[in-house]
Amino acid sequence: MSQSVSPIDRLKQFVSQSANMLNLDEDVAIDRGMTQIIKSAVMVIGGGEDKVQDRKILKAFVESSGGSQARIAIIPCASREPDIIGRIYHDIFTDLGAKVVEVLDIRERPHYDYPDAEALVDRFTGIFMTGGDQLRLCGLIADTPFAITIAKRITEQKLVLAGTSAGAAAMGYHMISGGSSGESPHKELVNMSTGLNILPEIVVDQHFHNRNRMARLMTAIAAHPDRIGIGIDEDTVAIFEPNHIMRVLGRGTVTVVDPGEISYSNQLWVSGSAPLTIHNLRVHILAAGCKYHLLKRIPISPSV
Amino acid sequence: MSQSVSPIDRLKQFVSQSANMLNLDEDVAIDRGMTQIIKSAVMVIGGGEDKVQDRKILKAFVESSGGSQARIAIIPCASREPDIIGRIYHDIFTDLGAKVVEVLDIRERPHYDYPDAEALVDRFTGIFMTGGDQLRLCGLIADTPFAITIAKRITEQKLVLAGTSAGAAAMGYHMISGGSSGESPHKELVNMSTGLNILPEIVVDQHFHNRNRMARLMTAIAAHPDRIGIGIDEDTVAIFEPNHIMRVLGRGTVTVVDPGEISYSNQLWVSGSAPLTIHNLRVHILAAGCKYHLLKRIPISPSV
Repeated sequence: MSQSVSPIDRLKQFVSQSANMLNLDEDVAIDRGMTQIIKSAVMVIGGGEDKVQDRKILKAFVESSGGSQARIAIIPCASREPDIIGRIYHDIFTDLGAKVVEVLDIRERPHYDYPDAEALVDRFTGIFMTGGDQLRLCGLIADTPFAITIAKRITEQKLVLAGTSAGAAAMGYHMISGGSSGESPHKELVNMSTGLNILPEIVVDQHFHNRNRMARLMTAIAAHPDRIGIGIDEDTVAIFEPNHIMRVLGRGTVTVVDPGEISYSNQLWVSGSAPLTIHNLRVHILAAGCKYHLLKRIPISPSV
Repeated sequence: MSQSVSPIDRLKQFVSQSANMLNLDEDVAIDRGMTQIIKSAVMVIGGGEDKVQDRKILKAFVESSGGSQARIAIIPCASREPDIIGRIYHDIFTDLGAKVVEVLDIRERPHYDYPDAEALVDRFTGIFMTGGDQLRLCGLIADTPFAITIAKRITEQKLVLAGTSAGAAAMGYHMISGGSSGESPHKELVNMSTGLNILPEIVVDQHFHNRNRMARLMTAIAAHPDRIGIGIDEDTVAIFEPNHIMRVLGRGTVTVVDPGEISYSNQLWVSGSAPLTIHNLRVHILAAGCKYHLLKRIPISPSV
């Protein structure tokens, strides 16, 4: 009897059973990567996404935003050269077949009040925040009617939001605004500020392994153990879907630093330059095809 | 009643109870750092240890080796300038009060057979391996009667062995011989070889956070999930005692990467350049005063 079941079938059966155990739809656990159009996702890109070859990540953003029906706004205001960077993405999204592409070159705040802010946001199906300086981005739009409406429309599943580099860093409530590497974890290794609060449950770091930011993300998470650290490599995206699933797409990895089981930390009482002690961080390295359940805090193996 | 118990007393009581729960001697959980002379330890130093100021780590090595009765051998053969580096440590250990200090300038293998190798090792209470190139060190002494006798005397608790930088890297059976940083974890990020097998249960990396080696240690451990990854910062030592306790001393941190709970990894079948997926690594960052139980795989909080 047992010979008639191939190893692949056994593996599929195992995945199916695991999915049941995890109380997930089998489809959710089994389907492969980006087979269907993702609606209402937040796409957090680690910077350096491919802009000239297969442009997998930017293409996924346009497709999620409606493909040939996509109406896309570019927010280039993290950058000190919003004209140039806005034009680059404008040309890419146009080339990728979006119906409408506009650059919202916001240079001061507050730029819109209700109901104009809502009317503005509602003209688009997808909004893309470029790289630059996350403090500049948040200084211009955080807590404005415009940003609040964006967050609201995401919750209502009416909008796709993507951010790359600085635009990714700003996604959380607690935001890594700067820091360094090449040192033992200590509090002065990372500078924190307040972000756009689109994904309040996570602290994002970007250009992650490329710029050796593991120590600074662990340091940030030690200070905010009620969040989950998400470190995203270049040309890689963490896609947050409404069902609390994070999917990975792209060339590198997404690193999850889960402090949910920390049993001891000296973070509260040591000086800024003293080495940190943190017991029991759980870390996952996730390549393309992997998923992570944010509420259950479990990684889901790639489909078989 | 409860007002009569101070917060500090309550904390001490908690630590005492925790120690009982962990089935450890209260003394083991409570005593402070390096209060007593450590016998028969293996001291794995992350490189760049202080040689001019309080020389805490090198002093601890001399004290562990017997203090004013210490007979110390320096093995400088990882270095391409064994004369110079041998002399530097010779002067330091002499200055720190060791009774005998000798440089064993081994330049070819095999240099000693039994029983001469045993007679040589037995002249010393402490052996110190310098930095340089761990492949050169292992090429000269691994699997020689000399190295086998060193391992035997450590097991018999008759010898203290210390190694810094390359001398630290060589402590495990699986040895990180090179690699790079600034990239997503992938198999080509790390080069592995065979070490001196002094501490077979661990894979050591040194100059750890200083040279951003988290990704390469996680990569090494994904390939050897039956070991524990130990990343040691500069001017920091992981002291392995016969009771399976690792203690931390020095300026930086020791990072433990425990793969004991890995539930999924693509390590076996992906290409060398493909990004790795690793689910459920447990990571501890340990500063001076912390301990880690290698068999139980649990960190022990610093004493109160």
